[in-house]
Amino acid sequence: MTQSRTENRQMTLAARPVGTPGAEHFALKTTPVSSIVEGQLLLRTVYLSLDPYMRGRMSDADSYADPVAIGGVMVGGTINRVVASRHPDYREGDWVLSYGVGWQDYGVSDGSFLFKLDPAQAPVSHALGVLGMPGFTAFMGLMDIGQPKAGETLVVAAATGPVGATVAQIGKIMGCRVVAIAGSDEKCRVAREELGADVALNHKASDFEQQLAAACPNGIDIYFENVGGRVLKAVLPLLNAKARIPLCGTVSNYNASALPQGPDHLDWAWSTILTKRATVKGFIIFDDYGHRYGEFAKQMGQWVSEGKIHYLEQIVDGLENAPEALKGLLEGKNFGKLVIRVGEDELA
Amino acid sequence: MTQSRTENRQMTLAARPVGTPGAEHFALKTTPVSSIVEGQLLLRTVYLSLDPYMRGRMSDADSYADPVAIGGVMVGGTINRVVASRHPDYREGDWVLSYGVGWQDYGVSDGSFLFKLDPAQAPVSHALGVLGMPGFTAFMGLMDIGQPKAGETLVVAAATGPVGATVAQIGKIMGCRVVAIAGSDEKCRVAREELGADVALNHKASDFEQQLAAACPNGIDIYFENVGGRVLKAVLPLLNAKARIPLCGTVSNYNASALPQGPDHLDWAWSTILTKRATVKGFIIFDDYGHRYGEFAKQMGQWVSEGKIHYLEQIVDGLENAPEALKGLLEGKNFGKLVIRVGEDELA
Repeated sequence: MTQSRTENRQMTLAARPVGTPGAEHFALKTTPVSSIVEGQLLLRTVYLSLDPYMRGRMSDADSYADPVAIGGVMVGGTINRVVASRHPDYREGDWVLSYGVGWQDYGVSDGSFLFKLDPAQAPVSHALGVLGMPGFTAFMGLMDIGQPKAGETLVVAAATGPVGATVAQIGKIMGCRVVAIAGSDEKCRVAREELGADVALNHKASDFEQQLAAACPNGIDIYFENVGGRVLKAVLPLLNAKARIPLCGTVSNYNASALPQGPDHLDWAWSTILTKRATVKGFIIFDDYGHRYGEFAKQMGQWVSEGKIHYLEQIVDGLENAPEALKGLLEGKNFGKLVIRVGEDELA
Repeated sequence: MTQSRTENRQMTLAARPVGTPGAEHFALKTTPVSSIVEGQLLLRTVYLSLDPYMRGRMSDADSYADPVAIGGVMVGGTINRVVASRHPDYREGDWVLSYGVGWQDYGVSDGSFLFKLDPAQAPVSHALGVLGMPGFTAFMGLMDIGQPKAGETLVVAAATGPVGATVAQIGKIMGCRVVAIAGSDEKCRVAREELGADVALNHKASDFEQQLAAACPNGIDIYFENVGGRVLKAVLPLLNAKARIPLCGTVSNYNASALPQGPDHLDWAWSTILTKRATVKGFIIFDDYGHRYGEFAKQMGQWVSEGKIHYLEQIVDGLENAPEALKGLLEGKNFGKLVIRVGEDELA
C-alpha cells in the first residue's frame, strides 16, 4: 500500500478471461509518474471502486462500453488527491472522484470525468457507493422505473451489495414490504437487522423458490433486478399485474462462457411478462439518468445525513489485491460496497 | 351455416388440449333458443372472431383471464343481430359487437359487453378486426409503448395477421422503415405489396437470422412482439439502444406442452435488454387501454376511410368449422383476420 512519489504501479489487463477472471488475467506494471503541462492535473489514487460491470470490460463481447485493451490499465472509478495542478479549477490537496484514472497509483487529467469532493460533508469513499454510481443506480431504478407505492411488495436481489442495500432501504422509506435476497445466512441477517428488510432469504437454500413464495403472500409488485439466473426464475411466477422490473445487472452470468443448460425459459418468461402486463426496463445509470444526478445527490445526501440510509462498505488494502477481490465480488464474497485502498490519505 | 329459429347450436369445450387443439377437444351441442325477460335482448350470431388468445382459455394454466369450463360454450367476440329486444337501448334488427355470446348461434344479453354498430359506416365484421380488439392492440401497442419516430426501424412479426398487418401500416404512416416477418413467401408478398412493408422475411427460411440482420442495417428500434420463439431470438442481438418491445402475444408457444429444449436463453435475453437499455412491456389491450378506446376508434376510423390502412380478412363458413380453423390459426395457416360466418345477415 506504500505509494512511491516517482513510480506509478498500474494493474493492466493481461488476457481476456473465459469464465471466472483470476490473477493470471492481470499484470502489474511500473512506469514513471507522468509530468503535467498547462491545463493538467496529477492525481494520486487513494480508493479504487470494484464493481461487477468491470467483468464486462475485460471481455470483447459486444456491450454498452468499449473493452479494456490487452495491456491497458483497467478502468474504474477512483477517489484521488490532487498532487500537482496546472488547472485553474483545482489545487494541490483537493479530493476528487475520477472516472479517468482506473487501477493505478497516478493519473493525469485535463479535468474531464472529474468531480470535486468535500471531505467535511461525507467520507470521501462514499462517492464510490451510496453517494455515487451504485447509490444513483438504486435511486433512479427504484424511484423512476420501480415507482414504489406504500404497501407494495419489493423484492431486491444481491441485497447487501451497494446497489441492493440502497434499494432495500429506499423501499422501506417508501413504505414497501421489502423481501431481500442474498447469498449467505450472515448477509440475510444484515439485510434484516441493518437494512430493515422485512424478510431476507438465502438464494442458495434448496427450497428457495418455496421460501420466496411464502415470503410474498400478496405477490411481487417490483423486482429490482441485478442478478438474473435462479432468483429471476423464482420471481417471475409471483409477479402481480403491472409489475415493474428495473434491470441494471445480471451478475449471476457475468462469468458464464456459454449459455446455461436448458430447458429454454425465454418464451416462458416472455409469456409471463405478457400475462402479468409487466414492464422490464434495462438501464445504464449515467446514460439514462445523468441529467438527474442533482436530484439524486440532494435526496440521498439528506437521507444519509439523517441516518435513514445506512452504508455498508468493505475496504481491502492494496492495489495488488484488486484482481483477487474482483474475483470474490463476482462470486458474491463481498459484503457491502467493495473498495480497494490503493494509498493513504496523506503520503508519508 | 343455416341457422334455425328455434334451435341453438353451441360449440363447447369437451377436453383441455395438451399441445395443439383439435376437433376432439370440442363438442357441438344443440339447445332450445332461450326466451328473454324484461331488460334482456336475444342476439343471433352472424360472425365469430377467432383469435390466438382462445388457446389460453382452453387451458387451466394461470393466465390473465379465467379458463372456459369443461362443457362450457367457448368464449369469443361476435357480431350479432338483435332478434328480439326487451331492452330500452336496442331494437330488433340492430347490429352489435358482443363479448358475452361466444361460439353459438344465439345468446341472451342484458346489455353488458355490447357495443352498437352502424353498418353504413363500415362492414360490420371490421369491428372484430381493424376497428376492434386487434386494431386497438396494434394501435396502442405501437403508438404508446413503441413510440415510433420517422426513420426508425420497426420489426413486426405475424405481419399478415390482424394485429401485425395494422402495426406494419401504422408504422409506415409514422415514417418508419418496416421489416415484416411472416410464415410463408405468399404472406411476405402480401406484406410488401398490400401492406407497404419495406422488407418482408419468411421466418421459416434456414438463414432467417442472417436475412433479418441484413434487412436491419441500422439496427432495430421497435420490435412489436406477438410470437416469441425463433423470431425473438433473432431480433434481440439487433436491438438499438433504448429499443422498445410492446409485447401482446407469444403465439409460437401457445400450443407448447413443455418448455423447449435448451440451452436456456433467458439470462442472455436479460443481459441484452440491459446492455441495450431496452424496454419490454406486456399489455392486455382492454385492461391497459380500455379508457383510450375513443382515441383509437376516431383515428383508425379515419385512416381506414381514407384508404391509408388496408384490412385483410379471411372468412370461413360454418360454426362447425371453427375448431379446425382455430387449429390452423395457431399453426399460422390463416391469412389476415380469421372470422367464422356463423349465419347470414338475414335469416331466410
